[in-house]
Amino acid sequence: MRLSATILSLAIFMLAPLLQAQSASPLNLMPQPSSLTPSTGALPIDANFSITLTGYTEPRLDRAANRFLTQLRRQTGLLIDKAAPDSRDARKPTLIVHTDRASKEVQELGEDESYSLEVSPAGAKLNAANPLGILRGLQSFLQLVAITPDGFAAAAISIHDQPRFAWRGTMIDVSRHFIPLEVLKRNLDGMEAVKMNVFHWHLSENQGFRVESKRFPKLHEQGSDNLYYTQEQARDLIAYARDRGIRVVPEFDMPGHSTAWFVGYPELASGAGPYSIERKWGVFDPAMDPTNEKTYKFLDEIIGEMTKLFPDQYFHIGGDEVNGKEWDANRKIQQFKKSHNFKSNDELQAYFSQRVQKIVTKHGKSVVGWDEVFVPGVPKDIVIQSWRGQQSLAAAAQQSYHGILSNGYYLDLGWSAARHYAVDPMSGAAATLSDDQKTLILGGESCVWTEYMDPENIDSRIWPRNAAIAERLWSPQSVTDSASMYARLDVESARLASLGLTHRSNYRKMLQRIAGPATPEEFSALKTLADVVEPVKDYTREQTAAVEPTSQTPLNRIVDAVPLESDAGRHFSELVDKFLATSCHDASLATELRTQLTQWSQNDATYSQLAQKSFLAKEATATSHDLSTIGAAGLAALDAITNSKPLSSDQQSQLNTALTDAAKPKSQLLLMPVPSIKKLVNAASSANPCSSTTN
Amino acid sequence: MRLSATILSLAIFMLAPLLQAQSASPLNLMPQPSSLTPSTGALPIDANFSITLTGYTEPRLDRAANRFLTQLRRQTGLLIDKAAPDSRDARKPTLIVHTDRASKEVQELGEDESYSLEVSPAGAKLNAANPLGILRGLQSFLQLVAITPDGFAAAAISIHDQPRFAWRGTMIDVSRHFIPLEVLKRNLDGMEAVKMNVFHWHLSENQGFRVESKRFPKLHEQGSDNLYYTQEQARDLIAYARDRGIRVVPEFDMPGHSTAWFVGYPELASGAGPYSIERKWGVFDPAMDPTNEKTYKFLDEIIGEMTKLFPDQYFHIGGDEVNGKEWDANRKIQQFKKSHNFKSNDELQAYFSQRVQKIVTKHGKSVVGWDEVFVPGVPKDIVIQSWRGQQSLAAAAQQSYHGILSNGYYLDLGWSAARHYAVDPMSGAAATLSDDQKTLILGGESCVWTEYMDPENIDSRIWPRNAAIAERLWSPQSVTDSASMYARLDVESARLASLGLTHRSNYRKMLQRIAGPATPEEFSALKTLADVVEPVKDYTREQTAAVEPTSQTPLNRIVDAVPLESDAGRHFSELVDKFLATSCHDASLATELRTQLTQWSQNDATYSQLAQKSFLAKEATATSHDLSTIGAAGLAALDAITNSKPLSSDQQSQLNTALTDAAKPKSQLLLMPVPSIKKLVNAASSANPCSSTTN
Repeated sequence: MRLSATILSLAIFMLAPLLQAQSASPLNLMPQPSSLTPSTGALPIDANFSITLTGYTEPRLDRAANRFLTQLRRQTGLLIDKAAPDSRDARKPTLIVHTDRASKEVQELGEDESYSLEVSPAGAKLNAANPLGILRGLQSFLQLVAITPDGFAAAAISIHDQPRFAWRGTMIDVSRHFIPLEVLKRNLDGMEAVKMNVFHWHLSENQGFRVESKRFPKLHEQGSDNLYYTQEQARDLIAYARDRGIRVVPEFDMPGHSTAWFVGYPELASGAGPYSIERKWGVFDPAMDPTNEKTYKFLDEIIGEMTKLFPDQYFHIGGDEVNGKEWDANRKIQQFKKSHNFKSNDELQAYFSQRVQKIVTKHGKSVVGWDEVFVPGVPKDIVIQSWRGQQSLAAAAQQSYHGILSNGYYLDLGWSAARHYAVDPMSGAAATLSDDQKTLILGGESCVWTEYMDPENIDSRIWPRNAAIAERLWSPQSVTDSASMYARLDVESARLASLGLTHRSNYRKMLQRIAGPATPEEFSALKTLADVVEPVKDYTREQTAAVEPTSQTPLNRIVDAVPLESDAGRHFSELVDKFLATSCHDASLATELRTQLTQWSQNDATYSQLAQKSFLAKEATATSHDLSTIGAAGLAALDAITNSKPLSSDQQSQLNTALTDAAKPKSQLLLMPVPSIKKLVNAASSANPCSSTTN
Repeated sequence: MRLSATILSLAIFMLAPLLQAQSASPLNLMPQPSSLTPSTGALPIDANFSITLTGYTEPRLDRAANRFLTQLRRQTGLLIDKAAPDSRDARKPTLIVHTDRASKEVQELGEDESYSLEVSPAGAKLNAANPLGILRGLQSFLQLVAITPDGFAAAAISIHDQPRFAWRGTMIDVSRHFIPLEVLKRNLDGMEAVKMNVFHWHLSENQGFRVESKRFPKLHEQGSDNLYYTQEQARDLIAYARDRGIRVVPEFDMPGHSTAWFVGYPELASGAGPYSIERKWGVFDPAMDPTNEKTYKFLDEIIGEMTKLFPDQYFHIGGDEVNGKEWDANRKIQQFKKSHNFKSNDELQAYFSQRVQKIVTKHGKSVVGWDEVFVPGVPKDIVIQSWRGQQSLAAAAQQSYHGILSNGYYLDLGWSAARHYAVDPMSGAAATLSDDQKTLILGGESCVWTEYMDPENIDSRIWPRNAAIAERLWSPQSVTDSASMYARLDVESARLASLGLTHRSNYRKMLQRIAGPATPEEFSALKTLADVVEPVKDYTREQTAAVEPTSQTPLNRIVDAVPLESDAGRHFSELVDKFLATSCHDASLATELRTQLTQWSQNDATYSQLAQKSFLAKEATATSHDLSTIGAAGLAALDAITNSKPLSSDQQSQLNTALTDAAKPKSQLLLMPVPSIKKLVNAASSANPCSSTTN
């Protein structure tokens, strides 16, 4: 069921020299393959392109080939399948696909996903043991297709590729905000594009029970505001995911995070009720009654129903963040704890988890749970999903439990792609495990908690950063160059947009809404500002909110529209570093900096006009003012550097005061260029401001 | 069946003062209502917004209300229908809709579409005789919703509105390039947004027969490359259109433009065959055999089948552009002409048209045909669609024929919105008609011929310019201020994007494809260039093509990506006019001009880097060079003006030579700022360069 870590380590060791060669190449493969050998020349891609399936075949492969052609058309604009029918069949196929055999009817953890892809100027061959490898290889081929001075072409190359981890997932919380099926589908397209293979569907929460239950219809009828997936839709999504080599692991979070269950079935809860759907964010008191046999009978039936609906071997029972208040307040439960000699609520939860785990096992499935389910005595075949960190995984592995990492992969916290990328499931405490223990770490999952996401902005909260996590989980551990990652991420981000993801297009639409009937100049001023801000990070958004946010709070503000990582901010920071590293003598870099800083320094004049028209623009008035201030500060520093007239200490302290103020978040926005401007000011404060290195 | 022109003229006369007031207001209604009275204050729009339907009701109205709420959510980002259910029902509805009675089961030409809309700070009322008026009024309400310094709000106003013309259509050619159903649907959404009411579905052509025929399946099986609508899909689209108050008029073009029919049924043709689907553009020889009784038997059956599928009263039989070559080459047909005493092919075609018209009439429908069907003897109940101009309509009306205007409304020719806007069905020869005759002119249709359009770029070829035509056909004839039109068009364009039209988002995606793995600076350079170019106009694209274009030619070039009207070009031209009209003393306008001209003058340096990477960017190398040249020319002129140092005659002639060269289209692209730069150079050549007016 799992890849052998020993073999993998060996493979990585042998491939290290190739990976060196590869980082110098302009190939935009993402995730990086485990092994590749670039060759010379390229395969031209024109309207005569064709693909042929050989060996084992099945309708899923035909559909994959069709999707591949559709995407190739989107990437190139060539009318690839529309050649005159007469000429089409006669020509030699450009890409010959060979599949050895079928994969499992229900995709399993650890199935072979390896493939080999040979591209030469004369044609291409993709081979894999089963359809899963073909799906992975088709995406690699699409990433090889690039525009050149002479047309579209795929670089000649030989790739032998396999994943480092068998579990490479994305969890989406569809409960705090409902995410319609078509939005999930386009995100599954994105996952396929970067070779992820698990969609973890967080289906129930305090704020919503999101899938139809025929056995207990009040779950979705009363617990979802009528925003739920029918069982037919769930089956549709599962089939859609299977087509893309993606398993679907459902999560029904219990015994906490379950208020929405209690609206229709208050008898499950530990409190007196009645309950209503939670509208706020946070950790709440309601929890299932672990002492009532009727709870387990109910769970047996709903788990029985849901394990039939979801074919995957794994079934997620949540288990996180029970605050225990309802248990403490319930005399019957306190008596039960006493009579069972449970010293803490943790022990009571362990009892609950074991009971639920037995039910899941009875229905033929294996349990996944968050860190909290890992308590003494829990059965060995459980998989721990760690939101706490590698030390939890290591502790679990030392006791022979499987684990997957999510700590460090919470996309909603607004970390940069580089920061996520630096998180490795095998680092920290996990690095000290024995080779055998390491095999227990199955991979990881990015998590998308949707307090501040809805169908309009969710794509921009997931992509493109999720591709960096996908690479971390697929590529060899030695692939860690974040500059290379970003270069490829920029290209992949455009490809994801061509697949239909809206992380770029909806950003503009949301800005347009904020701008209202702005003049083109005012819209530009808004875009200039929005391009360099990010929402406050981690859990500070709740803390900095003017009014307590709820599920009814509109997500139409600048903080909701801007990407969680600013490309323009990153590019500016790269530019400053490059300038300061080149002895400050590069006139063209200085001009580029001056143009950017001038634009910022002048931006507030136009922005303030817009702020008088739109309440959503008005919110960011202070940030817009800050942008002009830091633009001016940067210009002063740049002048000092290029004129070799260091800033006086008065000037320095004045600029630094301004920058310190600009660094403070305002209306929940962070101004990303501030640290780079600080670097300029620091450099401008020295008599010999610039590094003498020329790299 | 038709609106009375007398009453309409009277209405317009009475409303003229109101329209004056209106043009000064910042309301973004498009089309302009026939009558409105602005009031004070505004109705706040927040998440508690609700709508209630009173009076006559039907499921279509419920669906319209739901669509309205969805769009209101999109425009505001407010979670309008997601308020807690308990509070929702209790609150007073914000918008009360009252409908008197049903409209016709199958929408008819000339049905009442009037409505009244009263918005006050306390609430809004929308009244109409039937659901059609409600649909129109709901769009007006959505257009009133704007962002303000205090939130979203709808301006207080009283509107009494009705269309000037009863036939306000858009024709889309789905034959030259197949346009999938979902693309048509989003364009119908756009038509609804601007109150258009006829979708003319150009279903057959030399290049494709696009609808399933159960009676003659070889029509779509052999005539469509398998790209056709099933009858179920056609019914789906008709229902979709009806929900939006849009009639669907199918066109089956005959006896010419019909090669695709002959692939499966060569016996219909006048030539010997065999035939294959036409891949090129132009007028071709194949034409139906008008002398063969079997042709009419076939047409009787297919028209019988299609009139059952399409419920509209009108059925379009095409009739345009028969070159007569196949008829001339066919001895039997020549004999038939002689024996019937037909002196020309026109007379033969008139015979054919009359026969077909009788068939259509037999099946209970009325005929629409292009100009060519208007020949002596054709029955009076035919509607002439004029691609030739108002003089054709006038000639027809003088003989009591109905007409609709399309000349001047061909969106594929690349005219500006202002140029389309200036075309009035009642102008030219039509203006001389008697009032009774004028009633015969039913309206107009924009036409979208798809030689150079596919699903990716078609929206940007239709929108936003189609909204200007929609206004021409709905609003009073006196509404002609193109500055007001453009101001409102900019806002409506954003609203159309929020409805799902891709005219903006796909432009960026196509540029991204052209840019490939460009740096951000290179992408900006591409965008800067693309923003100020337009494709060559009218029918010059064929003439200027390096290789003869066909239906297989990819539409992935800059000329395919850029909008047919450059917003940036237009804004620059407005800026120059404003600058020259303000005595050239407005420093802020001078700065704005300088910033823009500097960007252009420097753009080629970066663009030329990109041109070395991408063959699609390389194409526009000369145009990019021209842009930098005209940017520099503009700067020289601006310097001369602001320094009050007129250009020498040498300088003038040098700059003018450069501008003359830059004005020549290259790789089928026109550089739009050239005329405005010429104005600057002219102004800079005089000692007293600027107008002394200060308006």
